[in-house]
Amino acid sequence: MDRPIGVFDSGLGGLTVLKEIINILPNENIIYFGDTKRVPYGSMSEEIIIKYTFQAINLLLSKNVKAIVIACNTATALALSKCLDKYDLPIIGVIEAGARECLNITKNKVVGVIGTEATINSKKYNKELRKLDENIIVFEKSCPLFVPLVENGFSNKEESYLVAKNYLKDLINNNIDSLILGCTHYPILEETIKKVVGDNINLVNPAKETANDLKNILTENNLLNTSKTKSSYKYLVSHIDDKFESIANKFLGIKIEDIEKVDIQNY
Amino acid sequence: MDRPIGVFDSGLGGLTVLKEIINILPNENIIYFGDTKRVPYGSMSEEIIIKYTFQAINLLLSKNVKAIVIACNTATALALSKCLDKYDLPIIGVIEAGARECLNITKNKVVGVIGTEATINSKKYNKELRKLDENIIVFEKSCPLFVPLVENGFSNKEESYLVAKNYLKDLINNNIDSLILGCTHYPILEETIKKVVGDNINLVNPAKETANDLKNILTENNLLNTSKTKSSYKYLVSHIDDKFESIANKFLGIKIEDIEKVDIQNY
Repeated sequence: MDRPIGVFDSGLGGLTVLKEIINILPNENIIYFGDTKRVPYGSMSEEIIIKYTFQAINLLLSKNVKAIVIACNTATALALSKCLDKYDLPIIGVIEAGARECLNITKNKVVGVIGTEATINSKKYNKELRKLDENIIVFEKSCPLFVPLVENGFSNKEESYLVAKNYLKDLINNNIDSLILGCTHYPILEETIKKVVGDNINLVNPAKETANDLKNILTENNLLNTSKTKSSYKYLVSHIDDKFESIANKFLGIKIEDIEKVDIQNY
Repeated sequence: MDRPIGVFDSGLGGLTVLKEIINILPNENIIYFGDTKRVPYGSMSEEIIIKYTFQAINLLLSKNVKAIVIACNTATALALSKCLDKYDLPIIGVIEAGARECLNITKNKVVGVIGTEATINSKKYNKELRKLDENIIVFEKSCPLFVPLVENGFSNKEESYLVAKNYLKDLINNNIDSLILGCTHYPILEETIKKVVGDNINLVNPAKETANDLKNILTENNLLNTSKTKSSYKYLVSHIDDKFESIANKFLGIKIEDIEKVDIQNY
């Protein structure tokens, strides 16, 4: 089954998930779509986020993908259940994986979640965590400037540190022992966030567990690629500039070779 | 002479200048171009800023403008002199006006300038101020996150205050009595900047003096519009979203009616 896997994010944050998928499923062909023209989704309405997610999935379906990863917490929080109703192929998000991973890590069962305004307001992480363990105590905080900081090239600069210190101070005071990075852009700010929260709080990146979920769902559906040809990676974006490539290179060590602009509003 | 005036900015910051022009020249027709697709210019190279400015001027010329205001400090700093060499019509920028206005206001002759990295690195404000008064003492500071803050809807929110406090602390300690807002986006952050610098430092917005310069140059060249028909305002942008309209409304009280998307790379 050499049909590609589709991976979708509002911008370049999903590359942090792509990296883990490539790591665990090196044999798969992948098409990544970053909606770089309309990023950030985090403060948009539910209606718009659902519409944009449907357009992304329609685009990936037109490329004949066999499964889709919504590598965007905001789109997962607001649109995943609607997508599962509407489409027939396997589709997974990042929130269930992130919640599970967090419960594996926490010792004191007091955890923090950071994400966009839309993700935090949806309370999806909270619900998912409490479904898995009703004794868990969850503190949440939206960090709306983190995505613009990353998308505008301020990752791990002084500005990011300053803003992170302000966003995270209450979570630290609440004695959390783990912190879910509930937005795929946030691992790009990992260095800064670590500097702010210190060594006693573990950062939880849902990417690795999401890649595991993908492997499981492909296996169950008999969709793993068994061909031995070299895997191909294609990148679709709705707006082209050099940020995409430079961030991919600088923070993820991903070398982008095949990049193409698409008119997403046509899907 | 009812041909329109062209006003150009990298994004929506130039609307702060447009407002003053409408105020002082209510009889003029105006075409505004905001390069909203490629904003922010502030950290780009000189070569790119010159190229983008030429494209903006070519676009405005294709609309038959009689004069052009480069309502963008970065483009003024890096490209105005090149534009004056290349084009025949009257073109003015915002830096000379801002320097003049600052010298009218300062009492202790110790002044601050804030702007994008490209503007501050060009030292154009410093040179212009010292050309007008060699005894002036100038402290400069680039504030690279201010434009992304405005363009992403964080104007006068807590994040802006936090970042402004950090950017401006050294200038305040240097006992400046006036501060040039050397980027047309910064007046949109005026409330925040005032809160940080206090009542003893006057904020200098080059927009009003720029509008005066425009009036003078139109008068000298016999280009003022003497027709009595209602003035028209047209807005061209390289990328359409709702930010442009909402910021124009919210901070400037400008009601945008005639907005059109253009493919700026074709000019």
